[in-house]
Amino acid sequence: MTSTIRIIGIDPGLRRCGWGIIETSGNSLRFVASGTVTSDGDMDLASRLCQLHDGLAEVVHAYTPDEAAVEQTFVNKDAVATLKLGQARGIAMLVPARAGLPVAEYAPNAVKKSVIGVGHGDKKQIHMMLKILMPKVEFKGNDAADALAIAICHAHNRGGERMRKMLASA
Amino acid sequence: MTSTIRIIGIDPGLRRCGWGIIETSGNSLRFVASGTVTSDGDMDLASRLCQLHDGLAEVVHAYTPDEAAVEQTFVNKDAVATLKLGQARGIAMLVPARAGLPVAEYAPNAVKKSVIGVGHGDKKQIHMMLKILMPKVEFKGNDAADALAIAICHAHNRGGERMRKMLASA
Repeated sequence: MTSTIRIIGIDPGLRRCGWGIIETSGNSLRFVASGTVTSDGDMDLASRLCQLHDGLAEVVHAYTPDEAAVEQTFVNKDAVATLKLGQARGIAMLVPARAGLPVAEYAPNAVKKSVIGVGHGDKKQIHMMLKILMPKVEFKGNDAADALAIAICHAHNRGGERMRKMLASA
Repeated sequence: MTSTIRIIGIDPGLRRCGWGIIETSGNSLRFVASGTVTSDGDMDLASRLCQLHDGLAEVVHAYTPDEAAVEQTFVNKDAVATLKLGQARGIAMLVPARAGLPVAEYAPNAVKKSVIGVGHGDKKQIHMMLKILMPKVEFKGNDAADALAIAICHAHNRGGERMRKMLASA
């Protein structure tokens, strides 16, 4: 019997955190829900991080995923932007970890490769493949779509990931 | 009558987060406690962020500060280090904010200026000034000392900070 695993994918960002929930059972994928948690740019940083925390905690509480996957932030040349993203990413990893979920990380090109077959491609290709892989998929905007792609990447890689961890701790 | 305000200063870092608690009443400063919360470098990132969260939450719960101050991370040229620091800093700001404390941010040179009179200086000067400003001070290591310096900086600047916020929201 193949067990069903519910996965939350998170695309972190200070202004917008995308999230997507899917279920995987053997080789099949099923869309559950997706959305975006936002923070108010007019508020101070600590309050914005609270908004992201509370929004993501609500999603984890409502959909009770078994495992989490977060995108490994692209480190660009703008240090201020990298720091902001880092702060949001800290929250995106903390929330599922505190809920007791294992949290995997995937690089953006690994996510693309897992969904569209190659490590590069535009947003439209990802949107199209999401619809092919999960015909009932629903998402608004790129952040939710990216989060679903991250969840799919984890569905495809979680076996290997678990095996590596088991071998590493053996 | 001058009210006593208890302040927590936090020096964020992924491996070590320094914290320092002081009380300010009018122009007087009083040392309360200091320490360092550490994360285990052998664990995965999400677990390490949980360790920092739980350690800082314990300190906030034990010492019930009224206000928090966190150092504005120095953005250096190493993007990977900046991202790591950002992740730890997100947790350092989230914990006091979730406990309902206002969280102020200060640049490293503002902290130094507040404690040793100028915007540059070495660790020894800070340690010496901490002992002059608070004769009963106790700290182990630079992270706890830096956190106490951040708390003192907030004690010196909080009037102006509050006034600016009131004016900004008026």
